[in-house]
Amino acid sequence: MVKNMPAYCKEFSLQEVCDFLKSHNDYLILTHASPDGDTLGSGFALMQILIALGKNAKVLCPDGIPPKFEFLVKTPVVDFKEQTIIAVDIADPKLLGMACEQYEDKVELCIDHHVSNIKYSKSLFLDSTSAAACEIIYTIAIALGVEINKDIANALYTGIATDTGCFKYSNTTAKTHSITAKLFEAQIDATEINRAMFETISCARLEIERMALETIDFRFNGKCAIISITADMIEKTKCDKSDLEGVTAMARTIEGVVVGVTLRENQRGKVKVSVRTHDPIDACAICSNLGGGGHPRASGCEIVGDIEHAKQEIIRYVGLALKY
Amino acid sequence: MVKNMPAYCKEFSLQEVCDFLKSHNDYLILTHASPDGDTLGSGFALMQILIALGKNAKVLCPDGIPPKFEFLVKTPVVDFKEQTIIAVDIADPKLLGMACEQYEDKVELCIDHHVSNIKYSKSLFLDSTSAAACEIIYTIAIALGVEINKDIANALYTGIATDTGCFKYSNTTAKTHSITAKLFEAQIDATEINRAMFETISCARLEIERMALETIDFRFNGKCAIISITADMIEKTKCDKSDLEGVTAMARTIEGVVVGVTLRENQRGKVKVSVRTHDPIDACAICSNLGGGGHPRASGCEIVGDIEHAKQEIIRYVGLALKY
Repeated sequence: MVKNMPAYCKEFSLQEVCDFLKSHNDYLILTHASPDGDTLGSGFALMQILIALGKNAKVLCPDGIPPKFEFLVKTPVVDFKEQTIIAVDIADPKLLGMACEQYEDKVELCIDHHVSNIKYSKSLFLDSTSAAACEIIYTIAIALGVEINKDIANALYTGIATDTGCFKYSNTTAKTHSITAKLFEAQIDATEINRAMFETISCARLEIERMALETIDFRFNGKCAIISITADMIEKTKCDKSDLEGVTAMARTIEGVVVGVTLRENQRGKVKVSVRTHDPIDACAICSNLGGGGHPRASGCEIVGDIEHAKQEIIRYVGLALKY
Repeated sequence: MVKNMPAYCKEFSLQEVCDFLKSHNDYLILTHASPDGDTLGSGFALMQILIALGKNAKVLCPDGIPPKFEFLVKTPVVDFKEQTIIAVDIADPKLLGMACEQYEDKVELCIDHHVSNIKYSKSLFLDSTSAAACEIIYTIAIALGVEINKDIANALYTGIATDTGCFKYSNTTAKTHSITAKLFEAQIDATEINRAMFETISCARLEIERMALETIDFRFNGKCAIISITADMIEKTKCDKSDLEGVTAMARTIEGVVVGVTLRENQRGKVKVSVRTHDPIDACAICSNLGGGGHPRASGCEIVGDIEHAKQEIIRYVGLALKY
């Protein structure tokens, strides 16, 4: 619960966002913890748009910037005391991580694309039809009449490309491609950005993938694939969260598999179960049997015990879902 | 050499292609052997465009249609005797495979985006700035005033998405995204197509990948990664050409690697060497030392002997290129 949740969160129109941005100054733009391309791309693009309007603006990244996103960082020329707090791509102030306590009740404007936004800010510009918050920032820039230069375009492209899995995911729309076409006209470094985002595998990822592939267990005539990642494997490879996410996505991509399960012993004696399905199998229904939940195609739950125990538990409900 | 190479290959303007298509009939559209998404997408989209113009049209696929592209196949309602031969996405009649002998000197019009097109057809509509032949087919459809319905849009999207690695490769342009935005407006099945093209791994691929990962050999401070695929591994996993291509691309994607080498014992006693580099290392220069060649970032050569021997040979020249 936000400390002083505003009694009323005003939902802005595009015109109202523009008026707000033009009539305030000394902006601090908050990005979320465990930052991704969309929050950082939105943050640094908006900063440059505000500077182009003659404003002071800076970006706060509570967790610092992962090396692959460092090219996005632009440092404002002058230092100044923040007066107006904006949050980008942040549906819930909890996602501010270490910055939550300080800022959760001070956000004047939140710009977001998550339908799950809890309306914690004084005003909100929400467009849940946008694949990325960067699509919204683009729309705002155009409405403000700010020229999309190469730096701004690179930042916006990074957010759009990462949030859509390089235009693969189902959130991609005509608008996504049409905005991206405009960004290309600003001579963006798309090839280099795509390589860094999508075609660079860390050695840790490679190693955890190799180990994970050895654990694949096919059940129910190959309709279910189960990957097991033990605490030992995580420790030995020193892989990070994004390496693990990549491996988690693998099980469902195998030909013929309709339920991909990944068991991750994040802590000894506690197994995080991730279930991803293809239509029509309901991942959320499977996980809710074990106290978890999520989305119809991607859900999770936690099971106390070792990996072998967790596997037996989840297999039982996968079998029921597959009518075995 | 084409049997009766035309003395003169007329290069068409967009207007001339449209006039040609409107003034002829009974089309046979040739696609290339080892078909990919672009030749098939172009072929079946063009067929439907011609049918919309009231023409007879059918598609010939010399090698048949791989299962993942079967959704593209649309059968013309009437059968007819072919009068006008069109080739799509075919730079050289050799690429017609089994259909080469019969058609190499009979192509009236070739529609292509390869700068290397050898101009074997009587007329040619070439646009080498297009990422995919499907971009050109789209432009022709618009010029002809044919409505881009969902089937045509799905076919064109398949070609554009596959030839650009789902918008990741450097051939992707503003035009690519802007055409794709228009295709989305026809309610295409982008999510399903992307899943089939980019997010489905065969069990054979998974198995060869697991084995290949175990052979990775890092040299020169991690700047070079070498993957070895023996004849035994290929035989055991029963993986096909596209599975092997995927694994070949892996070595260069590892963090810190500037030269990725894959050694493939396609035949016992003969090793196909694939070298992929990052700027500025010249893959072609490395391979030309061993009688091979190719492009600056992707080249190959063949070495007689076993994998261990091939590895020693190629390492020598990689070391020189990396100045070790």
